[in-house]
Amino acid sequence: MNLNIGLDLYGGDFAPACNVGGLQLALERQPQLIVTIFGDENEARNLLSDFPDLNRIRLVHAPNKIEMGDSPMRSLTNKPQSSISTGLRYLKDGLIHGFASAGNTGAIFGASVILLGPVLPNIRPCLMTEVPRLYGRDAIILDVGANADTKPETLVDFALLGGAYCKYVLHIDNPRVGLINIGEEPEKGNELTKSAFKILSQEQKINFTGNMEPDKLFVDAADVYVCNGFVGNIILKLSESLINLVRKLGFAHPYFERFNYENLGGSPILGVNGSVVIGHGVSNENAIANMILKCKDLAASGLQHKIKTAFGL
Amino acid sequence: MNLNIGLDLYGGDFAPACNVGGLQLALERQPQLIVTIFGDENEARNLLSDFPDLNRIRLVHAPNKIEMGDSPMRSLTNKPQSSISTGLRYLKDGLIHGFASAGNTGAIFGASVILLGPVLPNIRPCLMTEVPRLYGRDAIILDVGANADTKPETLVDFALLGGAYCKYVLHIDNPRVGLINIGEEPEKGNELTKSAFKILSQEQKINFTGNMEPDKLFVDAADVYVCNGFVGNIILKLSESLINLVRKLGFAHPYFERFNYENLGGSPILGVNGSVVIGHGVSNENAIANMILKCKDLAASGLQHKIKTAFGL
Repeated sequence: MNLNIGLDLYGGDFAPACNVGGLQLALERQPQLIVTIFGDENEARNLLSDFPDLNRIRLVHAPNKIEMGDSPMRSLTNKPQSSISTGLRYLKDGLIHGFASAGNTGAIFGASVILLGPVLPNIRPCLMTEVPRLYGRDAIILDVGANADTKPETLVDFALLGGAYCKYVLHIDNPRVGLINIGEEPEKGNELTKSAFKILSQEQKINFTGNMEPDKLFVDAADVYVCNGFVGNIILKLSESLINLVRKLGFAHPYFERFNYENLGGSPILGVNGSVVIGHGVSNENAIANMILKCKDLAASGLQHKIKTAFGL
Repeated sequence: MNLNIGLDLYGGDFAPACNVGGLQLALERQPQLIVTIFGDENEARNLLSDFPDLNRIRLVHAPNKIEMGDSPMRSLTNKPQSSISTGLRYLKDGLIHGFASAGNTGAIFGASVILLGPVLPNIRPCLMTEVPRLYGRDAIILDVGANADTKPETLVDFALLGGAYCKYVLHIDNPRVGLINIGEEPEKGNELTKSAFKILSQEQKINFTGNMEPDKLFVDAADVYVCNGFVGNIILKLSESLINLVRKLGFAHPYFERFNYENLGGSPILGVNGSVVIGHGVSNENAIANMILKCKDLAASGLQHKIKTAFGL
């Protein structure tokens, strides 16, 4: 079956031209793909005037742009015809299989939670990203920015969601969960991690492997690393900064390329009723293409359905 | 004047032999230095049996070792004759000018706060470290691990202490203070940083330059970066891990060497009545030597006295 993935025409610093370029790359790389563009219809038609593959494109008129500086919650009510809201409503109504945007993270996340709803009751959705490893398979880390403050129980939600992603998308059996912390012993850390350690240790559904200091991210110590969104976002952005410094000093290595946001494509939202991927604000054409393809893989995995089944819903 | 710096014979994974080796390096590098060793007298005498420079060594019998796994607070009462407690009591009594240890961070920090007391009333002491920069002068970041949970007001304490260190030790006039955050706008971040942003903006004594995402650590955006000890420790350890990965892949550059804990020597405690430097647990001889010399520089700066004077005490 050809999957139909929604693309926000306006998300990203180089939108809309760059998004159309990325869309073309994605269609070239994945023949079984249809893309629905959400944006101003006239503007989109102009941008697509000499597009080679128009029969694989759908177009939905959504003229409002949510800017990077817009308040996530206010923008949803103030701009009901935005590309983000419209795309997510189409996803909710089953008219597309996934939605990808490199726009305002807070707005996309907030709208996804409100419009699509949580995949499990009382489970807090979050954002995840991959952790590239030099040896052994890659891991995932979550939350990386959607929930800056969390309760200890919310880290358990992240562990359950991350475990499900590993199992159903990455096909890792019995994934190991590590808690990001500033010491290895159970009594180390802040109030959040000390409490979360206790709950994670007792949760039967989680294969908990203990506290992990940041060096443990890059060795095969766990498959899922959980932390609050503030810490996860700091880890994501600091890694990116240091890898950029390495690159600036003239060092190239395939391993460093795997940290590159371009190749990673974007961060899936886990825990909502729908496949949504958020791209980096500075996404170029290659990044946009990989964001679309990542969203297609997520949609193809049937993750939400499998999570519901696993939890008896 | 020759400064007399106390050295914990037992701090660090390779103590005591490595500490004696590091001590010898420090004395070679800095002719105007005397070191007082805190440890078991017999053990120290054996280790020093063919030491070339005995006239610059003092020895204080302190036979108890605080182990890395010991509870910081319990170890102070259970092991009153520990090398750490004894050294800090000597510092409090003015018998040495500074104290350096690569031992249990929590125990050294806790004992320093209790025995030496805060340099300013109601100001929470913390741990700092340097941030190496490719261009421009280096910055400092604090707290890097002593206060895992903080109130917004405590981040203001760190800003004041870091600013004083910049001014009186690094000779930076009107040092700029940045708040580590996951977004640049004032309303971004978690509850802690959102509140701290407001207080820092209003504090006349602080040259506040706003929120800083991790990439801003490595450009000349601020001189002092403040965060809670959990986030600071994650930043410290993640940077170390990534730089180690770079090194493992065979890339060498003088810039990366400046991230090396060996060359940095250790983290000074700021905000206590005395010069204390805590070294890395895995310190080798070079790291121990640099820890001692860093403590000597801190003691020579007269930082505590200058802070008191600046605040009218």
